[in-house]
Amino acid sequence: MTTDDRTPRPTADKPLRADARRNRELLLEVAEQVFTEHGPGASTEEVARVANVGIATVFRHFPTKEALLQAVLVRRLEKLREAATSMLGEREPGAAFFAFLDLVVDHSPVKNAFAQALAQAGIDVQAATSEAGQGLRDTMAVLLADAQRAGAVRPEVELPDLVAILIGAGAMLEHLADHPASARRALTVVVDGLRPRPTA
Amino acid sequence: MTTDDRTPRPTADKPLRADARRNRELLLEVAEQVFTEHGPGASTEEVARVANVGIATVFRHFPTKEALLQAVLVRRLEKLREAATSMLGEREPGAAFFAFLDLVVDHSPVKNAFAQALAQAGIDVQAATSEAGQGLRDTMAVLLADAQRAGAVRPEVELPDLVAILIGAGAMLEHLADHPASARRALTVVVDGLRPRPTA
Repeated sequence: MTTDDRTPRPTADKPLRADARRNRELLLEVAEQVFTEHGPGASTEEVARVANVGIATVFRHFPTKEALLQAVLVRRLEKLREAATSMLGEREPGAAFFAFLDLVVDHSPVKNAFAQALAQAGIDVQAATSEAGQGLRDTMAVLLADAQRAGAVRPEVELPDLVAILIGAGAMLEHLADHPASARRALTVVVDGLRPRPTA
Repeated sequence: MTTDDRTPRPTADKPLRADARRNRELLLEVAEQVFTEHGPGASTEEVARVANVGIATVFRHFPTKEALLQAVLVRRLEKLREAATSMLGEREPGAAFFAFLDLVVDHSPVKNAFAQALAQAGIDVQAATSEAGQGLRDTMAVLLADAQRAGAVRPEVELPDLVAILIGAGAMLEHLADHPASARRALTVVVDGLRPRPTA
């Protein structure tokens, strides 16, 4: 077992805090990799091994495996929001909106696996991710409104409709996980359904 | 406990067979009502009570509650197929296709509840309903092909895409169960996505 950060805290604790933050960030990055590759059933020991730290270090940051899974899920939502925000700045509104949909859909199977693992552990996923989820929804609302103003998305669609459509698309794509061509066609149907209908 | 059909079988068994079929059909009809109203957790005793027969009669036709649930699910799939077949005869192909989608979507929450109850009882739902499911898929293939030939549905959509889209729509509508206006808009998005895109 390594003892990498069991040394007594220095009195000037600002640098240590930055260190601890970096360690936490590293652990989350590694945990996301490990859980994505081996599924949420992968062990905390495996995360420690790949991160090259002792198991005690992992448990100091995340007292339980559920806490670690939850932190990974929250981080995914935050990253998704960051990606959405940068898309808003870089592309025209319609392109930003549809690029964001692609991103959500790509993230969806892994997110669902994390969420299911947490739910199986008896954790209220909605509550556990409420802050990050709300942040993501706020950004989605801006993406949607901008794309509608630009005429790229049907004007009557509201945010809860969009969220449900994305949940449905996740279930649809899970069903077609082994059929990529079919998945692509089915997703095109749903995405095109969001575009305005010709008035003719 | 009633003894309605415990009398010895007559030698001319043709009429009794017809009777038994009618009894079975009546039990299925009542069971569907009871399970739809009270959820798949409702008891077999309740089904017997509403059907006004003894519990022994129910168990003679359906040895376990799972057998009864499974028979109700199979019957729903068969009725859906019958409805699809009659739509094919009565309406123009595009109208038949979209009316059928509405019907599937209306049936979907109850069907999912039955399927979940069976899966929880350790029954392979896919295998248990394979014949009825295949029959329904065959009829859907005709509906789809006719609607595509009539130019009412995108030509590139294939049957597995459509099945997955309907599964996704089921998950989407389950999420919006308490928000009918949102559910209607979200469903319109998915359904309109199946229509051909203007080439302009």
